[in-house]
Amino acid sequence: MRASEAAAYSDAPVRVVGTCGYEIVESARTKGDGMHGYGDDKAKVLARLRRIEGQVRAIEQMVEGDRYCIDVLTQISASTSALKSVALLLLDDHLNHCVRQAAADGGEVADEKLAEASGAIARLVRS
Amino acid sequence: MRASEAAAYSDAPVRVVGTCGYEIVESARTKGDGMHGYGDDKAKVLARLRRIEGQVRAIEQMVEGDRYCIDVLTQISASTSALKSVALLLLDDHLNHCVRQAAADGGEVADEKLAEASGAIARLVRS
Amino acid sequence: MRASEAAAYSDAPVRVVGTCGYEIVESARTKGDGMHGYGDDKAKVLARLRRIEGQVRAIEQMVEGDRYCIDVLTQISASTSALKSVALLLLDDHLNHCVRQAAADGGEVADEKLAEASGAIARLVRS
Amino acid sequence: MRASEAAAYSDAPVRVVGTCGYEIVESARTKGDGMHGYGDDKAKVLARLRRIEGQVRAIEQMVEGDRYCIDVLTQISASTSALKSVALLLLDDHLNHCVRQAAADGGEVADEKLAEASGAIARLVRS
Repeated sequence: MRASEAAAYSDAPVRVVGTCGYEIVESARTKGDGMHGYGDDKAKVLARLRRIEGQVRAIEQMVEGDRYCIDVLTQISASTSALKSVALLLLDDHLNHCVRQAAADGGEVADEKLAEASGAIARLVRS
Repeated sequence: MRASEAAAYSDAPVRVVGTCGYEIVESARTKGDGMHGYGDDKAKVLARLRRIEGQVRAIEQMVEGDRYCIDVLTQISASTSALKSVALLLLDDHLNHCVRQAAADGGEVADEKLAEASGAIARLVRS
Repeated sequence: MRASEAAAYSDAPVRVVGTCGYEIVESARTKGDGMHGYGDDKAKVLARLRRIEGQVRAIEQMVEGDRYCIDVLTQISASTSALKSVALLLLDDHLNHCVRQAAADGGEVADEKLAEASGAIARLVRS
Repeated sequence: MRASEAAAYSDAPVRVVGTCGYEIVESARTKGDGMHGYGDDKAKVLARLRRIEGQVRAIEQMVEGDRYCIDVLTQISASTSALKSVALLLLDDHLNHCVRQAAADGGEVADEKLAEASGAIARLVRS
């Protein structure tokens, strides 16, 4: 049983790592109150990812059906663009929650979170 | 019934648009012999697209499970990069088959295919 | 005379906007002590930008000399990549100085700086 | 003395590599008549590159003047985008001249030119 499942069945506190990367202690009652980088946008992020998954599956069907290369390429570019948009949304949430909180706390955690964010931005820019 | 399905059931010639965008006449017997931009790499392209579809589904599960933003972003960048690689493979096939053939044929078809390829490259570079 | 020039000639305090976007008060004596987003990396950033300027000028000479398209394209890709690297360095400095400070200060300034940083990241990712 | 300089002083034929990568024989009189990938757009390409060079120099001055990071980043993104546009223009010319001609000629030259074009596109997409 995963920690999150345990929390759903008991009120005993469990230690989980939140979306901000902090270990947080939560119980069934406080579940969801932890610091969540993309907490508010979770439903929107999931909806967009499911649409992208559908786009990729549609591209597979285009290739299976020997559809014209250029049309396949157009759909791939659209999916790439959509993935980048979702990444920018997540990054904005991450800066506004995790990085903001870490910067306010200061110290090594702030250094670490800022270095991590820079790394993620670089990977995205170069992807 | 789609043309490709018709061809599967009868030997009567059908007119379909091949992956190079040319209308080609094929029958059940010649099916697959038409000019196919990504014909040789079709299995490879499909395998890569299915892997990307799996990556996107895994990213959805990460978000559902409130996994750390930075880890989610790393996976999105990897998927974006994989999509671009598949696009570059398709584009290389397209240049080597469709564009090469159209350029050899010359005339308006050549103009059209070259303009289309440029457009697809621009969309990819800016995606 | 610009504020920065005035400060060079007199010790009277002048109000300038630092690289973090805050209005800071500085005199000839304190000049350079203000919060500078890329302060530490200023020499490195300038050296890289000058190298990129030289690369672009070399590309012009290649075109003037009718050099082979593919070689020109290779150099343009290298310059694009170098510009992105300089942007990532500036962004890292910006996050570590301006955004960190604003997040620690909290309030509207934090909101504004975080929104600005997200906007800059999005422009870079889509450029 | 470079071949192009020699051609400027004498009418003796010289062997130079044109912008399409073919070795062409030209004299002072025929100079400029060779197959030029970006021949028609040469003035436009040069004008754009000079504007980009000016943009990069302006960015250096912004950094020297301790201008706000975000404003510097905005200008870098604009220059990156402008460089990509110039690359897409050159690539379009290259496909329409060099690749079209090579494909029409066929054989090994066609293979080589198409492989080169794919490589240049991949570098641009990943830059």
